[in-house]
Amino acid sequence: MDSRFILEFFGTAMLILLGDGVVANNLLKGTKGQNAGWIVVTFAWGLAVFVGAYVAGDSGGHLNPVVTLGLYMAGLFDGTISTVIGYTIAQLLGGFLGACLVYLVYKPHFDKEESADKKLWVFCTAPEIRSPFYNCVAEAIGTYVLIMGIYLAGGAKIAGPFPVAMVIVVIGMSLGGPTGYAINPARDLPPRIAHALLPIKGKRDSDWGYAWVPIVGPIIGTLLAVGTYMLFTNYAII
Amino acid sequence: MDSRFILEFFGTAMLILLGDGVVANNLLKGTKGQNAGWIVVTFAWGLAVFVGAYVAGDSGGHLNPVVTLGLYMAGLFDGTISTVIGYTIAQLLGGFLGACLVYLVYKPHFDKEESADKKLWVFCTAPEIRSPFYNCVAEAIGTYVLIMGIYLAGGAKIAGPFPVAMVIVVIGMSLGGPTGYAINPARDLPPRIAHALLPIKGKRDSDWGYAWVPIVGPIIGTLLAVGTYMLFTNYAII
Amino acid sequence: MDSRFILEFFGTAMLILLGDGVVANNLLKGTKGQNAGWIVVTFAWGLAVFVGAYVAGDSGGHLNPVVTLGLYMAGLFDGTISTVIGYTIAQLLGGFLGACLVYLVYKPHFDKEESADKKLWVFCTAPEIRSPFYNCVAEAIGTYVLIMGIYLAGGAKIAGPFPVAMVIVVIGMSLGGPTGYAINPARDLPPRIAHALLPIKGKRDSDWGYAWVPIVGPIIGTLLAVGTYMLFTNYAII
Amino acid sequence: MDSRFILEFFGTAMLILLGDGVVANNLLKGTKGQNAGWIVVTFAWGLAVFVGAYVAGDSGGHLNPVVTLGLYMAGLFDGTISTVIGYTIAQLLGGFLGACLVYLVYKPHFDKEESADKKLWVFCTAPEIRSPFYNCVAEAIGTYVLIMGIYLAGGAKIAGPFPVAMVIVVIGMSLGGPTGYAINPARDLPPRIAHALLPIKGKRDSDWGYAWVPIVGPIIGTLLAVGTYMLFTNYAII
Repeated sequence: MDSRFILEFFGTAMLILLGDGVVANNLLKGTKGQNAGWIVVTFAWGLAVFVGAYVAGDSGGHLNPVVTLGLYMAGLFDGTISTVIGYTIAQLLGGFLGACLVYLVYKPHFDKEESADKKLWVFCTAPEIRSPFYNCVAEAIGTYVLIMGIYLAGGAKIAGPFPVAMVIVVIGMSLGGPTGYAINPARDLPPRIAHALLPIKGKRDSDWGYAWVPIVGPIIGTLLAVGTYMLFTNYAII
Repeated sequence: MDSRFILEFFGTAMLILLGDGVVANNLLKGTKGQNAGWIVVTFAWGLAVFVGAYVAGDSGGHLNPVVTLGLYMAGLFDGTISTVIGYTIAQLLGGFLGACLVYLVYKPHFDKEESADKKLWVFCTAPEIRSPFYNCVAEAIGTYVLIMGIYLAGGAKIAGPFPVAMVIVVIGMSLGGPTGYAINPARDLPPRIAHALLPIKGKRDSDWGYAWVPIVGPIIGTLLAVGTYMLFTNYAII
Repeated sequence: MDSRFILEFFGTAMLILLGDGVVANNLLKGTKGQNAGWIVVTFAWGLAVFVGAYVAGDSGGHLNPVVTLGLYMAGLFDGTISTVIGYTIAQLLGGFLGACLVYLVYKPHFDKEESADKKLWVFCTAPEIRSPFYNCVAEAIGTYVLIMGIYLAGGAKIAGPFPVAMVIVVIGMSLGGPTGYAINPARDLPPRIAHALLPIKGKRDSDWGYAWVPIVGPIIGTLLAVGTYMLFTNYAII
Repeated sequence: MDSRFILEFFGTAMLILLGDGVVANNLLKGTKGQNAGWIVVTFAWGLAVFVGAYVAGDSGGHLNPVVTLGLYMAGLFDGTISTVIGYTIAQLLGGFLGACLVYLVYKPHFDKEESADKKLWVFCTAPEIRSPFYNCVAEAIGTYVLIMGIYLAGGAKIAGPFPVAMVIVVIGMSLGGPTGYAINPARDLPPRIAHALLPIKGKRDSDWGYAWVPIVGPIIGTLLAVGTYMLFTNYAII
């Protein structure tokens, strides 16, 4: 088995542990960081990508199926379609593990928290105003910025993870307002499954009606970025 | 056509998408980042320049007509006066596109928001205390710091976009108090035009009486910076 | 005597001076930074590690007995078991000095503050919800992220202290919610002893019942990281 | 005349323009950043040093008489005692200019603000609890951390201004609580003189009784750092 799969699994688990962790700290009752605010949430997600990509190292630190897809379609990925699928599975499994670890770290606070909504929001994204079309637009544009940033950084592997982390921070600050910026299917679906499976006290349903948006939106954004990249390279702009 | 025009167009669209995006997130009703505060606004604008300059890459990532002007007048720009005009047009068009994208991302929140003022402020700057002279002073001094920073960094292209992004952050934190620091005609005029043209529900007029300040102030600041730079180089200070 | 011991002593004193300093500023009555919030606390601890590791320089800037232990067990430390013990003693003494300096800097504010709890919390960590098992889990997982980050950065000495500082920031933001993230025995025990010994006006007991958690939790997390590292290197994953 | 004097003058003016600027933005009535909080104040001061040191460039970007003194006494400064005096005068004049520029940028807000205390605090530091001894201790320890950071970074010129900027940020967050961390005579005295001379509407006296503390404290801290540095180099620790 390609050892890069293990690195992607491990890096994505780290990403979701730290990313969902900051949401737990911000939302759940009686934590040190309760209501720490958007600056803490967005910075921590950026640094979660930084740490995840750092520890993933030789795999390129994608940690996101649409990043793998976008690099593959642009001819910037050293692998076949099977490798893409392997990466994707590793990322989804890593996301699931990360979400379970967050539950473990914040278990006493999950028990104390009364709001079933907040417990869900620790795991997966939810729009502030439910509108499938505009929610997809927000996810697609956020993902587009991410993928273009990675293309033009020459891939996270080359530029180092810090610039990509900063791109994640600003996407959250600027485009995260409507949906909470999943921009990554592995950030939303596996933690949602974890929410469904884990024995969380007083939990609500896992909001499956919204689960397709953080998958379809990012894929659309990636395809748009692939198109832009091809235009740019064909016409020798970059 | 000079392919750098396309990069400037693209980079400035990214800048305004992310920059006006954070204002929308901070101001509009029912977003995840409502009232996230000045730390989020100033950091996101700095990182918006970072991302915009990053993606613009080979054009130098000016994203601002007075940056192009300042580099040209100082003999640091590889281009003729026609290239300067081309850059400026590209930046203005990019700013317009970026503002339209922000509207798309935050459409449901524009619909929900009642304050017509806030809807305008997402697009363009407005002074807290209206005083044409002092508002121009604030814009001129802010721009002066930016242009001197770029001169002494040897241009964003050489130093990489991160130092310039940090200069933008501190200008916002320290000098942005009176006017909201446009310091860039492409950041204010094209989004203002977008505000006038877009079918925004319940919008007010586009405050055209103030529109000249974020153009004239930055030009004055740039000319002062050009003068300082020439003094310094003539007397072999730098 | 190995001169690296002095650097570790000096660097850890700096770490605790700056780290406990930000807690004093955030908690005590009448400071400039009272209630500055989690963003300030977490950033300052990250930068405290940055400064401490910077000034420690040639010792590697561990500033933490479990970092020394983890590097030693992984074969990444240039020293014997005696050197490990020397490092540990130096770090514990440094932590004690740092805590005393914080008391000196904030003396008038300790006098003015009425809450005996807050006075204790300046020195050492305390869980929000007391649960030995889950408190240990939180400390262990936080430390695991730290040690893995150091392994994969090739040690702070090689990568420079900035990436490790960012890892500390995100551990605080994301995993610090339940216990206040000691993740370092030298950060908790010596300041706790300083609290017991210093003539602090109106102080409470030093909460010795909790003192073992920020020692045992980090050791468990380190052992898990050592195990992961060995698995990864044995199977040529990294 | 040594052209480095002009760079120090220019860089210190930039430092105080941006540093006092953020205080004005945070404190004065009706600014965009009113009550933006300690995170904004401390970050902006760090970045103000970053920008000031950047633009000062070839002079080493000291921007602070005790930094010049400390580097001179440690044998790390390329200059005679006359050069030290020239640097100091340039820094003091630069600080005065910077403070005047802040007044110009925030003039309408100075007019609107009613609190004479806040108007003073824009210019110079004031302790939260007045205690000459402990205020000096806080200034001395803060300065000690700064000077040690600069020594061990090999001087800002070598390391680049970013690490030193981060040291400034953490000093503010962690040790700035009691006095507002002048840690630089050129940051306090010249703006205090500017406050006395400028025709500020409704201003109070310039608190001359405190003016010696942000001079004496930093000098003591510097001497302690010089002593530590000499001990370390004599015993081959660094």
